[in-house]
Amino acid sequence: MVSANDFFFSGLNIPGNTRNKVGSNVTLVNVDKLAGLNTLGISLARLDFAPYGLNPTHTHPRGTELLVVIEGTLLVGFVTSNPNKLFTKVLNKGDVFVFPIGLIHFQFNIGKTAALAFAGLSSQNPGVITIANAVFGSVPPINPDVLIKAFQLDKNVVEFLQKAFAPN
Amino acid sequence: MVSANDFFFSGLNIPGNTRNKVGSNVTLVNVDKLAGLNTLGISLARLDFAPYGLNPTHTHPRGTELLVVIEGTLLVGFVTSNPNKLFTKVLNKGDVFVFPIGLIHFQFNIGKTAALAFAGLSSQNPGVITIANAVFGSVPPINPDVLIKAFQLDKNVVEFLQKAFAPN
Amino acid sequence: MVSANDFFFSGLNIPGNTRNKVGSNVTLVNVDKLAGLNTLGISLARLDFAPYGLNPTHTHPRGTELLVVIEGTLLVGFVTSNPNKLFTKVLNKGDVFVFPIGLIHFQFNIGKTAALAFAGLSSQNPGVITIANAVFGSVPPINPDVLIKAFQLDKNVVEFLQKAFAPN
Amino acid sequence: MVSANDFFFSGLNIPGNTRNKVGSNVTLVNVDKLAGLNTLGISLARLDFAPYGLNPTHTHPRGTELLVVIEGTLLVGFVTSNPNKLFTKVLNKGDVFVFPIGLIHFQFNIGKTAALAFAGLSSQNPGVITIANAVFGSVPPINPDVLIKAFQLDKNVVEFLQKAFAPN
Amino acid sequence: MVSANDFFFSGLNIPGNTRNKVGSNVTLVNVDKLAGLNTLGISLARLDFAPYGLNPTHTHPRGTELLVVIEGTLLVGFVTSNPNKLFTKVLNKGDVFVFPIGLIHFQFNIGKTAALAFAGLSSQNPGVITIANAVFGSVPPINPDVLIKAFQLDKNVVEFLQKAFAPN
Amino acid sequence: MVSANDFFFSGLNIPGNTRNKVGSNVTLVNVDKLAGLNTLGISLARLDFAPYGLNPTHTHPRGTELLVVIEGTLLVGFVTSNPNKLFTKVLNKGDVFVFPIGLIHFQFNIGKTAALAFAGLSSQNPGVITIANAVFGSVPPINPDVLIKAFQLDKNVVEFLQKAFAPN
Repeated sequence: MVSANDFFFSGLNIPGNTRNKVGSNVTLVNVDKLAGLNTLGISLARLDFAPYGLNPTHTHPRGTELLVVIEGTLLVGFVTSNPNKLFTKVLNKGDVFVFPIGLIHFQFNIGKTAALAFAGLSSQNPGVITIANAVFGSVPPINPDVLIKAFQLDKNVVEFLQKAFAPN
Repeated sequence: MVSANDFFFSGLNIPGNTRNKVGSNVTLVNVDKLAGLNTLGISLARLDFAPYGLNPTHTHPRGTELLVVIEGTLLVGFVTSNPNKLFTKVLNKGDVFVFPIGLIHFQFNIGKTAALAFAGLSSQNPGVITIANAVFGSVPPINPDVLIKAFQLDKNVVEFLQKAFAPN
Repeated sequence: MVSANDFFFSGLNIPGNTRNKVGSNVTLVNVDKLAGLNTLGISLARLDFAPYGLNPTHTHPRGTELLVVIEGTLLVGFVTSNPNKLFTKVLNKGDVFVFPIGLIHFQFNIGKTAALAFAGLSSQNPGVITIANAVFGSVPPINPDVLIKAFQLDKNVVEFLQKAFAPN
Repeated sequence: MVSANDFFFSGLNIPGNTRNKVGSNVTLVNVDKLAGLNTLGISLARLDFAPYGLNPTHTHPRGTELLVVIEGTLLVGFVTSNPNKLFTKVLNKGDVFVFPIGLIHFQFNIGKTAALAFAGLSSQNPGVITIANAVFGSVPPINPDVLIKAFQLDKNVVEFLQKAFAPN
Repeated sequence: MVSANDFFFSGLNIPGNTRNKVGSNVTLVNVDKLAGLNTLGISLARLDFAPYGLNPTHTHPRGTELLVVIEGTLLVGFVTSNPNKLFTKVLNKGDVFVFPIGLIHFQFNIGKTAALAFAGLSSQNPGVITIANAVFGSVPPINPDVLIKAFQLDKNVVEFLQKAFAPN
Repeated sequence: MVSANDFFFSGLNIPGNTRNKVGSNVTLVNVDKLAGLNTLGISLARLDFAPYGLNPTHTHPRGTELLVVIEGTLLVGFVTSNPNKLFTKVLNKGDVFVFPIGLIHFQFNIGKTAALAFAGLSSQNPGVITIANAVFGSVPPINPDVLIKAFQLDKNVVEFLQKAFAPN
């Protein structure tokens, strides 16, 4: 039996914990947390930023993101494919910006105070691939020779990065 | 030439004017206002409510709505097709609710203070059909005999409603 | 084991019973009645009208309707979203009219004899929301304060309508 | 400027001319004839059959067909891909049958009187490929060696067929 | 538990057996053979041709085919719907050709040596309908009267073809 | 006027030039090079690898890739979103592997000889985002503070990478 609670989620008023390496936190309400979203092609996220906090370079493999700033000042950007052109903008309270499906993007709090944003995403399960974590912190790790050549890095830098991003 | 401004819209921090008959206002950022949304399947809205303000019974013919309450207390609901079951819920700050594509729904501020919500919609141009306005206030008006029979109303009530909802 | 009967339905030659308040009847062949329609994006309906019978203002949340008149004369129309423009036409035998997905529409027999139409719909399960029934006859009922404000009606008119459209 | 006529087509009450080699005629109302169908994913057809008339083996490359018999008795069928299983049924007045997208199908009037059917199709432009005409009557013709091998026919039979199906 | 093998298939280096009536063989890697293709909208095929071998006139009801020639010389073509126009081309090593969804097409090795091609198809399960087999070799067979009229053939030719294409 | 050449592309027999930093080359036949692919949802690529050549970590924002190895031995892999699990496999001649839409993946020639593969992609314009180039070589460059924090790298390493990947 379906009830109103199947279309309901609570808690998006609670700031995410930004005491981490990048100083940001994303709370995503997708179909795993709100079953009523099934087949409906949308999800919602709350983004919290400590001062100078960063939502690091990432992609959503299955969704476009449309963001509105509630508090603070964010430097945002995305990079197109073929060629790699950067579209970037400083956003203040009430500003809206779109990050097209599958493109690498970031949001950086360039203000001295915490920042807050909400975002709609065009999928019930858009996914998120944080580039550094996916590339250097996958389980099992990617063969270091692949990363040395892909990023033109010394072996020891790659080893450093694979340690830094390895999950606990 | 495409620039970052094609992916940008500003002004969603400005409260909509709720001094109207229903005491609410919706500011929709769709592809008409943000060209970069083209083909990307998403839009965003700001919903303002005066005390006891109502976003009256309406549908979005081309999109699902996923709403988060920022301030205040909203009574919300939607009605399914075949049969007409109402799913309803009182939402407080941080609560999220989904209104599936094409279904009639409403949001009613049942608090003594203004309320604020944001919503993502699963279309670049979801459309909005406010039921009373579409039924009783279309241009030209629907034949009154249709409305008398459809709503089982006296002719004078239909005439009253067609006057009340006629656009200026 | 799949057989030809899974792609088959019989009985659309039988006139629907129009002895009801609106004088019309719709027989819909959707995936619930014809399992072979699954994933195929189409359904079919037979529409019967008594003299002056009305298929009252309604929407299909998940499908466009394409109708052909077989017998009789119908006044039909649909109302667009933003703004609420009415497109209306008198249809005679052999006339075809399209009602785009999600828009409120109606068909009214303005002739002295019974009318008959068939319609294709662009979904295996288009749904139907009869506006008056969904708004005033949902189970449970919508809070009357919502309807009083949405339709600018007196409380007693809303109470009258909620009684009139309450299911048995 | 859009008007109601953009959503309207007339003439589907007129029987198609069945005085041809196969004794049948299809009148298709697609987006070319009814501009308002654009993006809406549906079209409608009238099918007329002389006694023993046949709508010969054909496919719709971009649409599923859902047919209802208005008058007469039709033997219908479609053949699945991998393996080639035939699903077949005799249809009488009021019977409905679905022909899934892209599959070869036919409708054959096995009665002594004219037959009439209507069909919805799940595309604004479903297309029709009459197998014999496409294979033996294309312009320019397919290399006969291809057809000799494909159909395991003598060269003279292929030449006969290419003459028989060549357009005027 | 999902593993890398769910995204893997082996054996497409093995030439298909072309010792059959048409002198060709298609090895299709669809979702039935590679479960990880589920929902991803693509499949892959290897096409082998003996000298003068033919991949006979066929359609893919649910996919477009994009082919590249690896070895040999192929005469290829497809026929459009309404009207039946043939688009044809001789392909050599490294040439690419597209066969749009649902259209009848063929590939014919016009060289004295074996030919090899690979093709991507825009569906996890595109299906294949070999025209002659579907029309003359379905199980159960199509009523011969249908085929006599559809192909304007003598009864004995139809009987010959139904025997020739009947599966073992 | 459409002709057969609109559905044709030649040159995929020519090995791509692998004398570059990564020792690989991709020749993509998308809708920009083959106009007839428009709306058809597929494209094709030839992948050449020098010994120890790498197609470095990249994503296709709008398409799934299905690859077949023609010559050589490739170590391939992709990383899922939430969590970052690596699926990896060594592929030999005739092996097929699927890289789902939007996920980071790579192909590495671990053999002593050149390798060759072909791939179908589920979009007429799948796009390609080579991670290192998009992140460190965009025009204009991403703010170094973003990259220092995102990759937990020293400023001088980021500056080194931005120089290394800057386009000429």
